[in-house]
Amino acid sequence: MERYGVGMGDLVLIATKGGAFEGILMPRYEFADEEHIVVKLKNGYNVGIRVEEVDSIKVLERHEIWRKERPEFERVTGLPKVKLIGTGGTIASRVDYRTGGVSPAMTAEDLYALVPELKELADLSVENLLNVYSENMTPSLWSRIATEAYNALKGGFSGVVIAHGTDTMHFTSAALSFAIENPTGPIILVGAQRSSDRPSSDAATNLIAAVRVAIHPEVRGVFLSMHYGLDDDLIALHRGIRVRKNHTSRRDAFESIDEEPAILVRGDRVLLRRTFPKGEMKLHAEFSDQAFLLKFFPGMEPEIVDYLVERGYEAIIIEGTGLGHVSSAMIPKLEEAVEKGVFVGMVSQCIWGSVRMTVYETGRELLRVGVVPLEGVTPETAFVKASWLLGQGLKGTDLAEAMKTDLRGEVLERRLSI
Amino acid sequence: MERYGVGMGDLVLIATKGGAFEGILMPRYEFADEEHIVVKLKNGYNVGIRVEEVDSIKVLERHEIWRKERPEFERVTGLPKVKLIGTGGTIASRVDYRTGGVSPAMTAEDLYALVPELKELADLSVENLLNVYSENMTPSLWSRIATEAYNALKGGFSGVVIAHGTDTMHFTSAALSFAIENPTGPIILVGAQRSSDRPSSDAATNLIAAVRVAIHPEVRGVFLSMHYGLDDDLIALHRGIRVRKNHTSRRDAFESIDEEPAILVRGDRVLLRRTFPKGEMKLHAEFSDQAFLLKFFPGMEPEIVDYLVERGYEAIIIEGTGLGHVSSAMIPKLEEAVEKGVFVGMVSQCIWGSVRMTVYETGRELLRVGVVPLEGVTPETAFVKASWLLGQGLKGTDLAEAMKTDLRGEVLERRLSI
Repeated sequence: MERYGVGMGDLVLIATKGGAFEGILMPRYEFADEEHIVVKLKNGYNVGIRVEEVDSIKVLERHEIWRKERPEFERVTGLPKVKLIGTGGTIASRVDYRTGGVSPAMTAEDLYALVPELKELADLSVENLLNVYSENMTPSLWSRIATEAYNALKGGFSGVVIAHGTDTMHFTSAALSFAIENPTGPIILVGAQRSSDRPSSDAATNLIAAVRVAIHPEVRGVFLSMHYGLDDDLIALHRGIRVRKNHTSRRDAFESIDEEPAILVRGDRVLLRRTFPKGEMKLHAEFSDQAFLLKFFPGMEPEIVDYLVERGYEAIIIEGTGLGHVSSAMIPKLEEAVEKGVFVGMVSQCIWGSVRMTVYETGRELLRVGVVPLEGVTPETAFVKASWLLGQGLKGTDLAEAMKTDLRGEVLERRLSI
Repeated sequence: MERYGVGMGDLVLIATKGGAFEGILMPRYEFADEEHIVVKLKNGYNVGIRVEEVDSIKVLERHEIWRKERPEFERVTGLPKVKLIGTGGTIASRVDYRTGGVSPAMTAEDLYALVPELKELADLSVENLLNVYSENMTPSLWSRIATEAYNALKGGFSGVVIAHGTDTMHFTSAALSFAIENPTGPIILVGAQRSSDRPSSDAATNLIAAVRVAIHPEVRGVFLSMHYGLDDDLIALHRGIRVRKNHTSRRDAFESIDEEPAILVRGDRVLLRRTFPKGEMKLHAEFSDQAFLLKFFPGMEPEIVDYLVERGYEAIIIEGTGLGHVSSAMIPKLEEAVEKGVFVGMVSQCIWGSVRMTVYETGRELLRVGVVPLEGVTPETAFVKASWLLGQGLKGTDLAEAMKTDLRGEVLERRLSI
């Protein structure tokens, strides 16, 4: 690219042995691999071109937003104050309507320049707290983000928006839900799936919706702001405690599990579908790294449980099959683990629905040896909850009782009939 | 129950301190626990009654089907021959329209008595091969089922229906898809989710649809027959290689992943939505138990990989986040595993969509150390495929190549734009 003096977002004419392509050069991370460049054609499709087949690249029009100094914006006064915490990932950066591209620094001015709608909405303060891909998040980083968000609300911000990579955003949203009891305002995680085949990235729309809800006087709690369905303008805010990334690449990758999204946003309309009770805000930021999430599969050798116990894990969350089952061969090992003081909780790898371990012999046997059914808690939230309760110093029956208790609306009520 | 001389399906009048209940006594496995009995009221609702609150139980009407000898049925002659293989689980047993209940033996006569529609459809031969809960299925049991199904087709049966517990039915359907190359007819797994709040169990409807497709002259391949959506009469046949149990309790718990069901059945109408190519049928029944399915979570300690390698696993299928990622801390351990000859493949815990490891630095780094992207193969199918290829004696680059190759339609094509 440097060789041809072109940059992301430039309108280019690329001559190849197979013909010429005119379009917008897409950012590096959109490359299928190092040997391809990707150009968005006028018809909206992206085409990947092998570098070795490129004869020449001519810049037809420079995309100045990536190069120039930002103009100074006149700040609108009297707007509600919103804290924007950057943690890394696609959206924690400059967002560009034209390419959907990002670059790795972020100031309030950058955001106002790139997403002008924000200027009229909120007085943004940006804190670039972390810069990690979300697959590198850890329980101790959850603590740092929770503390920062808590301090912002405590310090008088109307709301907090957290830019986060999407891969593990639902783990972090669950973590914040536990760590911050009764937040006095909205704490909203926002990511981008970067559907590069559309003129506007989802980053901008997700972010605008997040800020719009962050300034809403009635909303309290932890949410995750992403596209809803195939509609270009509809954004869902999912409760942070009951949401999951269920698609690798779609804009509407995140889904509320066994409930509807808490809030919908379309343009400047915000539809609240719940009430958001008040309470005294408290921070409980500590997480432990001694919880393990274990997915069961047919034929799994039970010795894996010995390993986890010997290694010192204090809580094992099992993703069982169906209503909460593992093979009979696993049960004695789980019994030993429980006898040694390890918490063993059961969720279902089905994702939807609730475990119910009284229906079949296997489930009843698991209950008998002390495995705790975690009802309709999602596997990811159950793992985060165990990590948090261990971080809060809970052990033994206290831990088991707390795992069974609905602390933040994470447990869906079980029904008698299935 | 014995004390009162009542049985499943009896119409009873139960007197309690809190009032009287009239309804049908539901089978034992419907009890919420040992202390409750469950009665289906006339309005269709189930009510759980604490045993200690029961003053008396009066039988108003015996449900004779559970007690009497079956009448001899006159077999309809000239019908297509279908082999029904019982493996255990709810449906591998007597199915009772009235209670949705089951009992643990099965003959063709039982089935004709309980699901009379079958009598006009097919000449059933029943083989009670196994009697295991599906969470106790293992790779070696997959081999036995595959061999039995293969022999049935080879021996001239039009089709094979396999009654199976639902918990791991999608693992077994993937296993049969690999083990039997080019089946000459339909091989259909069928289960029941036992929605006891409906007058008819889904067992009967799923089974009728399975048999209806099992006799279809154009259908070949491995499918899974279960309810589709909320419609009482609509049954979907999902391709065994791309289906997953996505709900713990709903009748429509199974979903085709990233494709539509292959066949729909409503009453006597069968809608084929694909063609089913012919080929020479071959059996490759061996599976290995040296594959491990590992779900990644934030903060996972990389030493788990050492454990799996030391324990002798020859293939590790990682359920990564998003497009196929794990933390940076895991990568050196995975590199070591690959260097020691362990196959490491990547799928996504998102369930829907495809891994695409060229987009982000983490994915490219994983590719560099030899982790193999498995595109849109579901985690469960990827695990079964690795187990099968190891069972077929493949190792090293042969194994990696075969894992990347679309052998049975398990790989969904990747798209350039995401």
